[in-house]
Amino acid sequence: MTASHRYSDEERAALYRAIRERRDMRHFLPEPIASEIMQRLLEAAHAAPSVGYMQPWRFIRITDDIMRHDLAELVEEERQRTAEALGERSNEFLRLKVEGMRECPELWVVALTEQRQAYVFGRRTMPRMDLASASCAIQNLWLAARAEGIGMGWVSIFDPEAVAERLAMPAAAEPIAILCLGHVEAFYEGPMLAHEGWDERRSLETLIGENGWPTPTE
Amino acid sequence: MTASHRYSDEERAALYRAIRERRDMRHFLPEPIASEIMQRLLEAAHAAPSVGYMQPWRFIRITDDIMRHDLAELVEEERQRTAEALGERSNEFLRLKVEGMRECPELWVVALTEQRQAYVFGRRTMPRMDLASASCAIQNLWLAARAEGIGMGWVSIFDPEAVAERLAMPAAAEPIAILCLGHVEAFYEGPMLAHEGWDERRSLETLIGENGWPTPTE
Repeated sequence: MTASHRYSDEERAALYRAIRERRDMRHFLPEPIASEIMQRLLEAAHAAPSVGYMQPWRFIRITDDIMRHDLAELVEEERQRTAEALGERSNEFLRLKVEGMRECPELWVVALTEQRQAYVFGRRTMPRMDLASASCAIQNLWLAARAEGIGMGWVSIFDPEAVAERLAMPAAAEPIAILCLGHVEAFYEGPMLAHEGWDERRSLETLIGENGWPTPTE
Repeated sequence: MTASHRYSDEERAALYRAIRERRDMRHFLPEPIASEIMQRLLEAAHAAPSVGYMQPWRFIRITDDIMRHDLAELVEEERQRTAEALGERSNEFLRLKVEGMRECPELWVVALTEQRQAYVFGRRTMPRMDLASASCAIQNLWLAARAEGIGMGWVSIFDPEAVAERLAMPAAAEPIAILCLGHVEAFYEGPMLAHEGWDERRSLETLIGENGWPTPTE
């Protein structure tokens, strides 16, 4: 056995703590986030892996109040359409707080680069690996935010074409996330949608198969 | 200001270390990974956020040698097709080691659940948020692996339909990753594709815009 590359017990515990305590937050305090913290979070995102090293992520900070208002309106419109599409769970859905876009001190839109067509490596048969890479970047940012004591929520309740148009994105660019960030009174103890009874945590064993599809036991 | 939820300096440093030192590995040692470590890595993945709490990830461990061989063949076929599609960079691409599927002691396929159509929350206009969620799970697993001293590579050079067929997945399921895991002689100092000159790291500033699309200065 060669030298171990394992981190110390304390370091591993810290990483697992962030993974365990990260939450999708929808409640924020108004205090601003220090710029050096925001910078560290973005650096963490940019350290993510990307297919063919394409680094497809682009970050747009929303500081214009009218633009924030318009984005919040676009999300509200889609929230209503989602409620309609949900049918019998419509009212239950409408009672949930699904975003904190008007309160959060930092509002960011993450989008995929408009130059995606040039990248074939790892994407010929799976073009959406660009989204996969950018999602890893967002997860990095999310974990770093938790360790910094900053809450984050990923809003995906919007029409991407409408958001792209509102932000005058290049034609081939694609928004994938509206991120709300801010200090929080308290992090939720568990996922909000579990707490609210929307769905339950699956047991891990039911998600794992050996040489074939997992057979759910639930 | 309310009580800080910030982690200690040591804890934050540990998280940032994992984010900075995580690599897409393609070289592995034959020693097995202890089952309790694999379990921790899968638990880390399962702690990821998911749109509408759908937990779309499914994990298939490949322990059958013939199945491993067949999957490696499917990747090799797509590697050749990617090389053809790359045109003038074909030879440069073929010189790269893009996976360690035949050496790694643990080989896993990650797929999206076949029950995706039932989930509308956060997916009505952006159905690929299932892939985004599963990518966050894989990133959790990747960071946890790095802290455990385990290398991981995400292979996306395959035809998802061919892999789904080989593993007899349900019709609506979709493989998104072949993960190679194992102990390593050494972690790469930087991204392999940067080291090999395939592409360069973009400077973070060029990826950020304020109230509009970032203007590249490179």
